[in-house]
Amino acid sequence: MDLLIKFIGEKIGLGNSDEDIVGPTDMDDSAVIKMSSDRIVITTDGHTVDPVFFPGGNIGDLAIAGTVNDLMVMGCQPLYLTLSMIIEEGFPFERLGEICSTIGDLARKSGVRIVAGDTKVMPKGSLNNIVLTTAGVGVIRREVPLQDSKGVSGDVVIVSGTIGDHGAALMARREGIDLETNLPSDVRPLWPDFKDVVLHPGVRSMKDVTRGGLASALSELSTKSGLVIEVIEDRIPVDPRSKAICDILGLEPLEISSEGKVVMLCSKASAEEVLGLLKSTDAGKNAKIIGELIEGPPEVHVKTNVGGTRLLDKPYGEPIPRVC
Amino acid sequence: MDLLIKFIGEKIGLGNSDEDIVGPTDMDDSAVIKMSSDRIVITTDGHTVDPVFFPGGNIGDLAIAGTVNDLMVMGCQPLYLTLSMIIEEGFPFERLGEICSTIGDLARKSGVRIVAGDTKVMPKGSLNNIVLTTAGVGVIRREVPLQDSKGVSGDVVIVSGTIGDHGAALMARREGIDLETNLPSDVRPLWPDFKDVVLHPGVRSMKDVTRGGLASALSELSTKSGLVIEVIEDRIPVDPRSKAICDILGLEPLEISSEGKVVMLCSKASAEEVLGLLKSTDAGKNAKIIGELIEGPPEVHVKTNVGGTRLLDKPYGEPIPRVC
Repeated sequence: MDLLIKFIGEKIGLGNSDEDIVGPTDMDDSAVIKMSSDRIVITTDGHTVDPVFFPGGNIGDLAIAGTVNDLMVMGCQPLYLTLSMIIEEGFPFERLGEICSTIGDLARKSGVRIVAGDTKVMPKGSLNNIVLTTAGVGVIRREVPLQDSKGVSGDVVIVSGTIGDHGAALMARREGIDLETNLPSDVRPLWPDFKDVVLHPGVRSMKDVTRGGLASALSELSTKSGLVIEVIEDRIPVDPRSKAICDILGLEPLEISSEGKVVMLCSKASAEEVLGLLKSTDAGKNAKIIGELIEGPPEVHVKTNVGGTRLLDKPYGEPIPRVC
Repeated sequence: MDLLIKFIGEKIGLGNSDEDIVGPTDMDDSAVIKMSSDRIVITTDGHTVDPVFFPGGNIGDLAIAGTVNDLMVMGCQPLYLTLSMIIEEGFPFERLGEICSTIGDLARKSGVRIVAGDTKVMPKGSLNNIVLTTAGVGVIRREVPLQDSKGVSGDVVIVSGTIGDHGAALMARREGIDLETNLPSDVRPLWPDFKDVVLHPGVRSMKDVTRGGLASALSELSTKSGLVIEVIEDRIPVDPRSKAICDILGLEPLEISSEGKVVMLCSKASAEEVLGLLKSTDAGKNAKIIGELIEGPPEVHVKTNVGGTRLLDKPYGEPIPRVC
């Protein structure tokens, strides 16, 4: 077991040099950390994606991006992660190494440190490959945390790019149509790229567009703000490859998960500035204003291409299991 | 999925009343928490125990006790936990409810709050029952954190009770000999029972006696302190039922995990006082001084009943998988 932990540590590239680690090092059970803020955010996510490697990423991308983005949408700078790996006996070391390298690379890119970890092995046949759980700790960097309930009438709805690419890429791989489309998952940690957006005082609410897709995110924003969200279908950015995959499989792009996109509510006065900030980043280059918050009982209205309006229900969940 | 989360939340008994939760409630993705200390400890543990229900507890006991005890042995007051549940499709709701009730009860007893959670379901056959990952956050309550490396020559080695009971109980259940012995696992969170011990200035190092048992814990304390640990075999408390199970299965009680015991290094001058503090608690009523730290290259010496001395090696790991 010690050898396995050593292998994982080397692949992730953990160091002991960071001066934030003021007490015992990673050779003890836990990490002691200096925290100067009194507004700390804590979050956790389990990752069970199948297949473990998919077009554009692997389960390690999801483990870092999911938790970094979860913290970020609170108005928070992600700082520390914990990582629990549960591995099926016989899972190839080479693949485990790739996952760990991904984790290390993305953690460094996002400016987060993995300060505690745990590894368990389950006998062959009792777990399908590998599952990861990350927990994250960060510090609020805004006067007021971003909150789903903060939208007011007149606010603008912005998405940071094409939606549904993660779910579509994963389903294409499972159904064997990925060779035709070559669509990669959009999984990526959005901090620090979106830092200026997160800190912008005109931004009120932000949600990562994960399980249940844009439909689920909009539905929650509408419910918690107690207002109607009206979006223009034509303006919602969807990659043509995702659209094609969804058409083939009979799925709705608005209900499919992204893992590198956010939707946000923003004051009308700040909308163009925030859009500009998003578009100046690689992760947000396809950002679009897609609608607005209006008076009325909480519902999501989609103005369709043919001039009608349809209600967008909150989906029951992702159409398939193990998408993240 | 929402129904499942609601069910889990009800069984655990999460509330929204705690004033430490200063920002978004558990209806948002993450929790915002006030932290007044700048010495925060973060830890994580995955739990894959098989069977999920065993004599004296279930996987929920392990999830709380493991993380609470991990924090405590750093000299830390456990405060906040995150909980990730990965559940096999078809796992009985009733059993899930029992696990969640256990988690809620133990969290309340330990004075910790579960501030963030995540639930994933894996298709039937891709996971054996359920795995849990907890991460924990706490605050150092001592001037200097407890550390494995802090022992000095002359220090006394104390264990807080009989060792090996968790591993023995689990193996007895698996091998079908538990009806004869009726030995329960010793799994329990040790905070706040051991609070006064943890805060005692004479205590230098503390380790929970989990995977690899007392042998592993002593070996690490010896290695990190750079000294010999000499223990008297006769003084090490072992429940006769654990001894019997180990005899039947050809196992060594010193290498079997406990989940509610700690071993500690303590200054000679404080030893009797610390022992008294331990013995005044239910969890520590069988505490014993078992040896001392002496000059010499790091090794663990066991003085046997027949007058000899044997070397105690660090075991490769727990003799069987999925013990915690």
